[in-house]
Amino acid sequence: MSNDSSSGRVAAELERWIDAANPGSKLPSTRALVARHGVSPVTVQQALRILVGRGRIETVPGVGTFTLAVRTARVTDFEWQTAALGAAHPLLPDAPLALQSPPESSIALHSGYPDRSLLPERLVRAAIGRAARSETVLSRPPSAGLPALRSWFATELTTVGAADVAAVTARDVVITPGSQGALVTVFRALVGAGRPLLIESPTYWGAILAARQAGVDLIPVPSSASGPDPVDVDRAFTETGARAFYIQTGFASPTGTVWPADRKQRILDLARTHRAFLIEDDAAHDFAIDETPIPLAAQDRDGHVVYLRSLTKSVAPGMRVAAIIARGPARDRLFADTQAEEMYVSGVLQEAALDVVTQPAWRTHLRRLAEQLGDRRDLLIDALTNHAPQVRVETPPRGGLNLWARLPDRTDLPDLISRCSRAGLIVGSGDEWFPAEAPGRHLRLNYAGPSPERYPEAARILAECLAR
Amino acid sequence: MSNDSSSGRVAAELERWIDAANPGSKLPSTRALVARHGVSPVTVQQALRILVGRGRIETVPGVGTFTLAVRTARVTDFEWQTAALGAAHPLLPDAPLALQSPPESSIALHSGYPDRSLLPERLVRAAIGRAARSETVLSRPPSAGLPALRSWFATELTTVGAADVAAVTARDVVITPGSQGALVTVFRALVGAGRPLLIESPTYWGAILAARQAGVDLIPVPSSASGPDPVDVDRAFTETGARAFYIQTGFASPTGTVWPADRKQRILDLARTHRAFLIEDDAAHDFAIDETPIPLAAQDRDGHVVYLRSLTKSVAPGMRVAAIIARGPARDRLFADTQAEEMYVSGVLQEAALDVVTQPAWRTHLRRLAEQLGDRRDLLIDALTNHAPQVRVETPPRGGLNLWARLPDRTDLPDLISRCSRAGLIVGSGDEWFPAEAPGRHLRLNYAGPSPERYPEAARILAECLAR
Repeated sequence: MSNDSSSGRVAAELERWIDAANPGSKLPSTRALVARHGVSPVTVQQALRILVGRGRIETVPGVGTFTLAVRTARVTDFEWQTAALGAAHPLLPDAPLALQSPPESSIALHSGYPDRSLLPERLVRAAIGRAARSETVLSRPPSAGLPALRSWFATELTTVGAADVAAVTARDVVITPGSQGALVTVFRALVGAGRPLLIESPTYWGAILAARQAGVDLIPVPSSASGPDPVDVDRAFTETGARAFYIQTGFASPTGTVWPADRKQRILDLARTHRAFLIEDDAAHDFAIDETPIPLAAQDRDGHVVYLRSLTKSVAPGMRVAAIIARGPARDRLFADTQAEEMYVSGVLQEAALDVVTQPAWRTHLRRLAEQLGDRRDLLIDALTNHAPQVRVETPPRGGLNLWARLPDRTDLPDLISRCSRAGLIVGSGDEWFPAEAPGRHLRLNYAGPSPERYPEAARILAECLAR
Repeated sequence: MSNDSSSGRVAAELERWIDAANPGSKLPSTRALVARHGVSPVTVQQALRILVGRGRIETVPGVGTFTLAVRTARVTDFEWQTAALGAAHPLLPDAPLALQSPPESSIALHSGYPDRSLLPERLVRAAIGRAARSETVLSRPPSAGLPALRSWFATELTTVGAADVAAVTARDVVITPGSQGALVTVFRALVGAGRPLLIESPTYWGAILAARQAGVDLIPVPSSASGPDPVDVDRAFTETGARAFYIQTGFASPTGTVWPADRKQRILDLARTHRAFLIEDDAAHDFAIDETPIPLAAQDRDGHVVYLRSLTKSVAPGMRVAAIIARGPARDRLFADTQAEEMYVSGVLQEAALDVVTQPAWRTHLRRLAEQLGDRRDLLIDALTNHAPQVRVETPPRGGLNLWARLPDRTDLPDLISRCSRAGLIVGSGDEWFPAEAPGRHLRLNYAGPSPERYPEAARILAECLAR
């Protein structure tokens, strides 16, 4: 919608007129509206389009613009649907807090997304503008994605790969409309309903949601500051016969953990032994601060690692583009699933995303972003240390967007969160990141949101709510 | 990718240089390349971006641009994946001919999409350009879609609705990234794997694909020039206990059928009797020629009709936006599925789609499109009548993009199609539109493709290939 305030004002005034008019009344001419509201014809047209969008008026070209009837609501009996739909299975959880939009006056530490000030706004707007003039507007890209974009994703992985690992090629890459779709596709196509999937605990809530959607049977494996213990992983593979393990080796959400190199090698060896897939989600790839972890996929010789990478969080929310990289028959299974599920992803978004990430300014942006994220992380840690010493951040993250904060064990988490919310601080419950019962009380605190200057205030509110 | 021919030429010349250079070689400076190739610095930058996209070079800001190693292919053993993946179920079909891109010199009557000359190109490019400057680039829209766009879809249906039917509201609308995703969501959330779904035969191949993806059990119901026979539908509901029927009441793909009003009413009554959903796909809504059918959803009082409408085909392939309209608990089931499956649809695409369809020029475009489609349809029918009398179009369609042509019963369809292809005519096999065995030999002939002036030639090729 246009943010133009005068068209919004004219629309609001016209809406009052429409409220009072009979349905089917003809609106005054554009010329008359221009004179009455003292605005330009363009503004009047924008106001009319807003009202069309709201379903209040209808334009009959060459005849005029008319008010529409607002039909009175009738009570409708949908009870028959209860039997037709059957029991809801699997019961999907409600939207987690991380997706909600709180009042603007609050301090928001709950989001999973970076604030708009951390996005490469000019690059993205210019890229979409160029894509609007490109061929991709009018043509269908191949179902697996634009070859040049697939090639870019492949090259990103190949350039950090071990010298004796075969290069990843564009053919190994399938583009999806965002990482959520990629997760569901991988779980559905490589695991399947009713079959076991090992998953780190805690882990990304979107992956837990995707796993429920795919109907897979989640097997939690505890994960500490150096990743999952190989003994636990080996036992879980053996006991369940699982053929896949969902992992985040670099800046895991929510903990920020980076697996040490030898731990990665051990888990890859276990996957080989158990002839299983590692589903590696590299969601925080672009949010490196102090180090740049090399994905496990870069060391994979035999198609054990299925690699996921999204551009939505780092480029812009409007840019729903992610990639699955897989080799061997697994790639074909995944491609068949995405093709049946969405046919293809808008070429406009693919073209614009490729434009952004191949600009030299993108690298400059990522370097500046690393500095900003580092400053914000340190600011939030300092604020907690100074004002909320009850809250412990055991391992300050070396990248990603979040602190994983441990609370005193006696904390009533839902109560704390609602007290904070009433005091103007929005925080995310750590419980949403556990595939089973949470073994302790945690908050995920995002340091990439708006208003970092309010972190001391946020820490004070948190301390007060904990003390009560 | 830029279509600029000079940047493409420079990229090709540089690629030959890279082929000969050692990996890690530094490329000459932009200034040197400008001088060597006699082009502008912008062209050189574009050429370099093409090569980055192809994975041939890498730019290290402030240092220079370097050639990348093309690693030699190594034979990799993916055999372990065979056991890990298990049997492929359900076996998804290959990409149908309707999605393939034939040689440009051929006459293409196989596509399911309108030619670019029939798209509102200027409107779409301007709308994406405006969206690039809008709020939607940097913000996440609500998971169910932009309220204004949902309101527009709701109004479209409400304005043709019966006066005593409650108005459809924005809350009843869920936006999805294209109609394929919408189909899978509806089949998965309202029917579910292993449960029966009635489906017209023939019907849209994408719906057959979506049904296989969702794992539902397809129950074909024959559909003639006036839609399915209520006796067949009643029996199929009774015998299978099905709770849903996938239908196209207006310009069905592939036949172009429009259900008469009394047939629509009978089928709606049957859905009420059997307490079942009608899943109405109004994919051809914007391709009306001689009449504008009113969707069955507009008569629905009790949430029996779940309505699907897409803008991708009529607005532009780059605009992946569709809507599901449903009322009652069904809407919540559908919303939960889309949220788990894709989180949200790019706000940029939603904003641009709304912009296009609320412009007065959109209505003008649809009127002109109706004339063009009518002319093309008549041209193709005339060409067949004059040059290929063996091919019968029993019911000339009053809208949509295709003729449904019956061939002599003895025709070897795969053989005919490959003979036509060799002779430069690409046609789609009718078999792809049947959920079970095809009862006759058909072709779907698209009259919305490129080069309508070649229809007589196309008809002659078809006649010759049939005669042999």
